[in-house]
Amino acid sequence: MSTCKYTGSVEKWGTFEAEMSGRHEGNPFTDYTIQGTFKSKEETKTVDGFYDGDGIYRVRFMPSFEGDYAFEIKGSFSDEVYTGAFHVTPAAECNHGPVRVSYTYHMAYEDGKPYYSIGTTCYVWELQSEELQKQTLETLADSAFNKIRFCVFPKHYDYNLNEPISYPYEGTPMDSSVLTSENFLEYVGCAEGNNFDHKRFNVKHFQHIDDCVKKLMELGIQADIIVMHPYDRWGFSEMSAECDDLYWKYLIARVSAYRNVWWSLANEYDLFPKKTTEDWERYASIIQEKDVYNHLRSIHNCKSFYDYTRPWITHCSIQRQDLYKSSEMVNEWRIRYKKPVVLDEIAYEGNIQHGWGNISGKEMTRRFWEAFCRGAYPGHGETYMNDEGILWWSHGGKLYGESPERFKFLQKIMEETPAPGLRPLENQWDEVGAAVDNSLQDIKYYIFYYSFMRPSFREYHIDDETEFEVEVIDTWNMTIEKKGIFKGKFRIDLPGREYMAVRVREVK
Amino acid sequence: MSTCKYTGSVEKWGTFEAEMSGRHEGNPFTDYTIQGTFKSKEETKTVDGFYDGDGIYRVRFMPSFEGDYAFEIKGSFSDEVYTGAFHVTPAAECNHGPVRVSYTYHMAYEDGKPYYSIGTTCYVWELQSEELQKQTLETLADSAFNKIRFCVFPKHYDYNLNEPISYPYEGTPMDSSVLTSENFLEYVGCAEGNNFDHKRFNVKHFQHIDDCVKKLMELGIQADIIVMHPYDRWGFSEMSAECDDLYWKYLIARVSAYRNVWWSLANEYDLFPKKTTEDWERYASIIQEKDVYNHLRSIHNCKSFYDYTRPWITHCSIQRQDLYKSSEMVNEWRIRYKKPVVLDEIAYEGNIQHGWGNISGKEMTRRFWEAFCRGAYPGHGETYMNDEGILWWSHGGKLYGESPERFKFLQKIMEETPAPGLRPLENQWDEVGAAVDNSLQDIKYYIFYYSFMRPSFREYHIDDETEFEVEVIDTWNMTIEKKGIFKGKFRIDLPGREYMAVRVREVK
Repeated sequence: MSTCKYTGSVEKWGTFEAEMSGRHEGNPFTDYTIQGTFKSKEETKTVDGFYDGDGIYRVRFMPSFEGDYAFEIKGSFSDEVYTGAFHVTPAAECNHGPVRVSYTYHMAYEDGKPYYSIGTTCYVWELQSEELQKQTLETLADSAFNKIRFCVFPKHYDYNLNEPISYPYEGTPMDSSVLTSENFLEYVGCAEGNNFDHKRFNVKHFQHIDDCVKKLMELGIQADIIVMHPYDRWGFSEMSAECDDLYWKYLIARVSAYRNVWWSLANEYDLFPKKTTEDWERYASIIQEKDVYNHLRSIHNCKSFYDYTRPWITHCSIQRQDLYKSSEMVNEWRIRYKKPVVLDEIAYEGNIQHGWGNISGKEMTRRFWEAFCRGAYPGHGETYMNDEGILWWSHGGKLYGESPERFKFLQKIMEETPAPGLRPLENQWDEVGAAVDNSLQDIKYYIFYYSFMRPSFREYHIDDETEFEVEVIDTWNMTIEKKGIFKGKFRIDLPGREYMAVRVREVK
Repeated sequence: MSTCKYTGSVEKWGTFEAEMSGRHEGNPFTDYTIQGTFKSKEETKTVDGFYDGDGIYRVRFMPSFEGDYAFEIKGSFSDEVYTGAFHVTPAAECNHGPVRVSYTYHMAYEDGKPYYSIGTTCYVWELQSEELQKQTLETLADSAFNKIRFCVFPKHYDYNLNEPISYPYEGTPMDSSVLTSENFLEYVGCAEGNNFDHKRFNVKHFQHIDDCVKKLMELGIQADIIVMHPYDRWGFSEMSAECDDLYWKYLIARVSAYRNVWWSLANEYDLFPKKTTEDWERYASIIQEKDVYNHLRSIHNCKSFYDYTRPWITHCSIQRQDLYKSSEMVNEWRIRYKKPVVLDEIAYEGNIQHGWGNISGKEMTRRFWEAFCRGAYPGHGETYMNDEGILWWSHGGKLYGESPERFKFLQKIMEETPAPGLRPLENQWDEVGAAVDNSLQDIKYYIFYYSFMRPSFREYHIDDETEFEVEVIDTWNMTIEKKGIFKGKFRIDLPGREYMAVRVREVK
């Protein structure tokens, strides 16, 4: 009888794993099944396991409750049925569970702690050199970012012509030495010279993805995994439906037991020449069936939004559609979609030639504050040209921009905001007013943001009774000036500079 | 027989004037008529004269042709019929005639010289102290502004509670000593305590308006006269239809013979509580009947645009409707209205509390360039708080802002632009591309403006044959860097700063 190694004790929302040997004749990725069923007093869940190379199969599971669990693992991978038991301990202090939608427009960890998302994007940071990956993780550790978008598949695009450290499939890629920034668009989809077997995963590639998701988890960062993307020369964006589905199931089996996983079905779904709405809906069905933890799900656009009213979509994952108005559209999107509005692409701070990647740190910070005060969650990216050709947006590495430091300051303000977060006020036309988005409690907490406007003073009149503590926040210079206690109608002097906010809180 | 003094010789588009004594029993503003008919080989026109006080009547006329003119003046003001002749000489070098619409979206003086409008607004500059008026004219003389919007009636508004130097009617105003910035909105329309006779003009007031229009003409500045406005405590915005019409006719008789007059029927027409579309259309009929020179006509909005497709409207006079997008909307407005788009209010540079008056000089300059490159004509205003309470936007005086200097630079570029002006290109989504708006000639002259974007380079490919001279324009630092001659597809390096433009011109 072969052995089953497994985790004896795991914390709530941690990852249980069982490892077993099994059949590996033929193609173990397609020829055999493996499933585990997990039972405790509170839940019973059945999940797929996966083949991890070298005759090894694994089943991963994320328990949502404390206490004793029993499991049974079986399938055609083995004649044996593996059973066992393990204990789930309370979550560690820094483990708040997966992120869920909270009060329609907001998010919170499963333990109730508000999750105020500040995202960034490094599309293929994990497929760069080990040294660069390490630097990326160090940069993230010292940042406000608590979500990162990245791809499982390598990326072929301007500034992205190098070879990834590994490929997701067994096989060999086209010769990349022919590529230049002039001709790269002639090599798209499945270019000539690629020879990959879309039914045989390169387990090293996926083991590395697992590892990266775990490292992000340790940093408290949500892994917004971009499962498919169109920036491709190897053909991974144009596989058959059968291979697509195989990939989806394999990835879900591998990583869904990590609590920090989000599913981004695609980056710029509307740029895939060969995928249809039926395809995206089929992938969504697969996630809903196979991801028993109900991680957050969305899909990111280039031009036209996917229909965010689809029931499987948990939140909007928006690339702005207008060059001039991005976060400013949030009010409309909230009304339209009644879901959290996550602004995954409102242009990147940088100086590359493309308009999506050359706004200033000031403009980026302004868009973040507009988003926050309108009750949405902004995302960052950075595209500064440099001699090494290492751009944060794709490769990770170091940050050169001026906005990330301001996000730390914003995050402090966010964390001081009562749950579940802010909603936009029907306010003066020339300010962005925000109140707490909680109809159950009358919390008198307001932020008035002035964006590019530079008033020398503003007048406020919230009510006649409440004593308010008023602070002037310089969102760019990152200062908070206490103005005192006010009641009734009052006037607050401002410095006549851009990017100021006024916070008005009931004195408790 | 009483005498008729008149101008013996006048330049083309100059102002002929005849002065006669006449009846002044009763109310000479309403009780008598006076008309002059002017004939030359090319034109015959009949215009109203007006009573100018002290028993004096005047008839003014602007000849549009050189050569000999004869006139005949008659009416119930006198038993006599006055006739005479005068000679019209060629226009002086600086006199290009009135401004007309040119090629649908643009403007040119009647002699064909393109008129690239750069407007400003000083609502009641001419009703301030003599010293301040003098300063305003000096400031204008040293500026790029070639159009100014101002009101005939005094203004009652925040920062505008002082007494005008004169009133348009005989009578006495309410006591203004009661007014504060807190209570001024309680005194609107016809507040108590005013005692004006809306049928007896204060000729001194109107003589002064004449004089100001002439002084602006000498500076080469169009007088965009705001005939009615709602910022009123004296009742001038709520007169009877009869008195309104009397006023319109009186003003037209006085000033329409000045070539630099434009008619702005109203500022923020939609804020008048007692005027209807029928009223505005009636005023428009009066202008069309009485202004025989066909000066430019428009009407300015607060929120909702007036219907700019109305035949009598020569150009759009737009206050932007969106806090974030102003000049950026020009493409749509051009398509919608097929008329010159004059952006008379895209917010003011300054730091007052109101969002319409606190943008930065950089943002103002950016909006100007967006407008220019999209084939529209931008307007300025300035509202910096200061101890004297003198804000350019209403009072004139000095300019404190950073944008006016940049308008001089822009004006230089405008003047180098081939007639009739620019049109927006259907271009890259992340630049504002402009070409010459002339379908009759294939002029290869392009400007690409990058607004808040900061590309480090851009690539261009206009055609394969033409040799282009390429310049990089820093619209903020006001420099032009020659990049050389290029052909076919070429790349231009840019400094990765905001507010850059690239000009690409065929080498001749």
